[in-house]
Amino acid sequence: MPTVTSIPIITATEAAALINDRDIIGFSGFTPAGAAKDIPTAIAARASEEHAQGRPFKIGVVTGASTGDSLDGELARANAMLFRTPYQSCKDLRVQINKGETCFYDMHLSMLPQAARYGFLGKVKYAVVEAASVSEEGEIVLTTSVGASNTFCNVADKILIELNEAHPAELQGLHDIYEPLDPPHRREIPLYSCSDRCGSPVLKVDPEKIIGIVKTNRPDEVGGFKDTDEVTKRIGENVAIFLAEEIKAGRIPKEFLPIQSGVGNIANAVLGALGENPNIPPFEMYSEVVQDSVIGLMRSGDVKFASATSLTVSPPVLKEVYEDLEFFKQRMVLRPQEISNHPEIVRRLGIISINTAIEADIWGNINSTHVMGNNLMNGIGGSGDFTRNAYISIFTCPSVAKGGAISTIVPMVAHLDHSEHSVQVLVTDQGVADLRGKDPAERAREIVDKCAHPEYRDQLHAYFDDVKDGHTPQTLRTAFAMHEAFMQKKDMRGVDWSSKYSK
Amino acid sequence: MPTVTSIPIITATEAAALINDRDIIGFSGFTPAGAAKDIPTAIAARASEEHAQGRPFKIGVVTGASTGDSLDGELARANAMLFRTPYQSCKDLRVQINKGETCFYDMHLSMLPQAARYGFLGKVKYAVVEAASVSEEGEIVLTTSVGASNTFCNVADKILIELNEAHPAELQGLHDIYEPLDPPHRREIPLYSCSDRCGSPVLKVDPEKIIGIVKTNRPDEVGGFKDTDEVTKRIGENVAIFLAEEIKAGRIPKEFLPIQSGVGNIANAVLGALGENPNIPPFEMYSEVVQDSVIGLMRSGDVKFASATSLTVSPPVLKEVYEDLEFFKQRMVLRPQEISNHPEIVRRLGIISINTAIEADIWGNINSTHVMGNNLMNGIGGSGDFTRNAYISIFTCPSVAKGGAISTIVPMVAHLDHSEHSVQVLVTDQGVADLRGKDPAERAREIVDKCAHPEYRDQLHAYFDDVKDGHTPQTLRTAFAMHEAFMQKKDMRGVDWSSKYSK
Repeated sequence: MPTVTSIPIITATEAAALINDRDIIGFSGFTPAGAAKDIPTAIAARASEEHAQGRPFKIGVVTGASTGDSLDGELARANAMLFRTPYQSCKDLRVQINKGETCFYDMHLSMLPQAARYGFLGKVKYAVVEAASVSEEGEIVLTTSVGASNTFCNVADKILIELNEAHPAELQGLHDIYEPLDPPHRREIPLYSCSDRCGSPVLKVDPEKIIGIVKTNRPDEVGGFKDTDEVTKRIGENVAIFLAEEIKAGRIPKEFLPIQSGVGNIANAVLGALGENPNIPPFEMYSEVVQDSVIGLMRSGDVKFASATSLTVSPPVLKEVYEDLEFFKQRMVLRPQEISNHPEIVRRLGIISINTAIEADIWGNINSTHVMGNNLMNGIGGSGDFTRNAYISIFTCPSVAKGGAISTIVPMVAHLDHSEHSVQVLVTDQGVADLRGKDPAERAREIVDKCAHPEYRDQLHAYFDDVKDGHTPQTLRTAFAMHEAFMQKKDMRGVDWSSKYSK
Repeated sequence: MPTVTSIPIITATEAAALINDRDIIGFSGFTPAGAAKDIPTAIAARASEEHAQGRPFKIGVVTGASTGDSLDGELARANAMLFRTPYQSCKDLRVQINKGETCFYDMHLSMLPQAARYGFLGKVKYAVVEAASVSEEGEIVLTTSVGASNTFCNVADKILIELNEAHPAELQGLHDIYEPLDPPHRREIPLYSCSDRCGSPVLKVDPEKIIGIVKTNRPDEVGGFKDTDEVTKRIGENVAIFLAEEIKAGRIPKEFLPIQSGVGNIANAVLGALGENPNIPPFEMYSEVVQDSVIGLMRSGDVKFASATSLTVSPPVLKEVYEDLEFFKQRMVLRPQEISNHPEIVRRLGIISINTAIEADIWGNINSTHVMGNNLMNGIGGSGDFTRNAYISIFTCPSVAKGGAISTIVPMVAHLDHSEHSVQVLVTDQGVADLRGKDPAERAREIVDKCAHPEYRDQLHAYFDDVKDGHTPQTLRTAFAMHEAFMQKKDMRGVDWSSKYSK
């Protein structure tokens, strides 16, 4: 599908000149993959100029999830964000958010598109979407992510396209664009396996709404991951051993179930371990993101198919994919995040969800977002979409951080994103805590004995072993004593429960 | 459908004699409606006899939700529970749970049936199910609830029926029994409106599994609710005004959306207010429980249809329903709790969920289960099933309790069941806090100014107004100071943040 030119070709600066102060813009991008690049950078430059003239200029920034530095970094450094939602992972933006300078709404990623349609985020005026090709009829082939681009184009008054020659037009066929109707007219999402398709390979928009095309040639700003180390390797192996035993016990079907896996080093280690474990059959993924490791697992036959909303791989791996595109188009589909993360599908397919925690408490509650209760790391992302509806929901984290000065297992999480009711298994480098069919006191013993670092086990037992007060024997007076010890002397070890905050 | 007698008619005592120590039993009952009565009472008596002989005798008790006193009360008082799940509201049982004497697993109610099928709860050996009739072919007409009875009969080795003559066999047609297949074979739940049916009016079981019928004639042990008072009335009116304004603003479709409403006095007041508000059209319900107030609203035409899993009405109202059964069978369906609470349907239909909180914090997190962080009240019930997938999720509570000594709005909830990400609107007698599109600091101001009692507003502002530390300006050192003030001097008022727990 060649890109036609009856739609005006404009520069990024010309595109940015169309934007007004306080406009809300929906940008493509789910991770740096497929994120708009030139236009947000030009908007940031425009904002700096306006600010230099003493004029206000800030825009509402709505995306699929995190993006690249040319979007979140540039706009943050230009102080050009009125608000930001639903997720970010940008260092400069994070600093502003944690200073209270930029409003950030942390949202479940599957709910962002419907919130935009329902009008809960205000009027989205422009969609700025990266494409591999666009036709005069308004048929857009997206690039390495779908995210919420379909919804932004649907709800926006006007659309600006970044036509990025770094991506081949032959990407057509990788995507499956389906957008549900809103209640009371919504029907089922007609997907019954990871590889089913129910939508269109192209995003169809009203061509009248496309007011300009900006041509560019820039790679996705995807960074690399650290190599698997001894700790992440043990976490991965523990997950694989647990799942293999569940298959053997008949609590997971012998044909296995689709895997959802978070993003990052632990996720890479888990997927690697699943691939290597001889008792785990080749599997399918129904997840948000296809990372580097998945590409290797497709080559080896360990991953049979992957459904996601973004292909977030490093430049050399993307080159490999593009050189063998037909092989990967048979094994991969990119869907809107509303579908990749849809609770209906997660529950129907019986997905095994594996997500990373910042910290977990002894009752099984999970902190996914805030360091020491105050400072946002990235956001909840899709972890809630998957966790809440999974066949089995698993959270992973290393048992300690900062060389042992932080125990990730604490009496009470300093911020709670996933409550005990939605967490079934906790895995660290130390072992596996199976929380199913256990009451809070039993969960506390299981988590401390199986998952906490040995150096912290006695201290954690001392917190709750003698408390006989209530179904959840929590002591509010000392629940955060380990966090406070870290904030005061940079070490969680050696908390003395009896003297701390004595009445 | 007459009940045939080739299945042995036995006494409750004979039924109880079949049960062994450590058996896991699935009992009918979702609220006291439709709960098994004679057999659990006989099992409790058996347990007491065994204990008197010095022999161990405890059973695993799995139900739909809460039950009546002849089940939870009798078994608790006989110390006959090995464990209890997924929900309870029994005073004697609650005391045991909060002493740590009885293991209780608090579960999302929609997940209980699949957890039983997946084997996550252990082997359910017996199903004990109340029925209005049973045929030789194994066709059972249930009574005032479905709950998880269909699943218990499906997974159990053997079934015992309590044939309760208090319920007419003409109930046939009130129920719609549909049980999904498990992954990887699960399909969509084919419901597209509250009144759709996709299953069978009778529960079909293998007749070989029915080993006995116990005949009885006992009413459901449903208590009454307190009358609406000035506080609950204002909460109800605030909800109705908010929803009417959302319709006017176009953020809720003008035909309105189905209502889910929790159980209790506030829920009664909310439903009453929705019925009375001229700007709210007649509506449908997709909820767990049909309470007394819904029956009146059906008579008045304000409620057009109600889908639920239990008909939990007081004895005089049940009499009224049974005397006009055809009228109500046209306006009501009882489904398995797996379907009444199914996330897929909740999201598809766009349900407006309205649930009651024990307390809320200034960031929008909700405590639904634990008083002062330790003591279980009832359980999370279905609130998470609905909240997490609602079109708009609303939580309600009075702004103060204990004559003003407790503020239900606190710096940090002492137990967290629903995180900020899944809570969109908070309503108290003071007003409505709309949390959509607000960051944590904005939510804190909105909640304190709109929902907190005036007597607590300055104190709550003092907690966070001057804190500039982080996206969520929480202070772990003092986050529970109001709770501790109540525990120490029975009053949350007058907390001095500066001196409290000084470093």
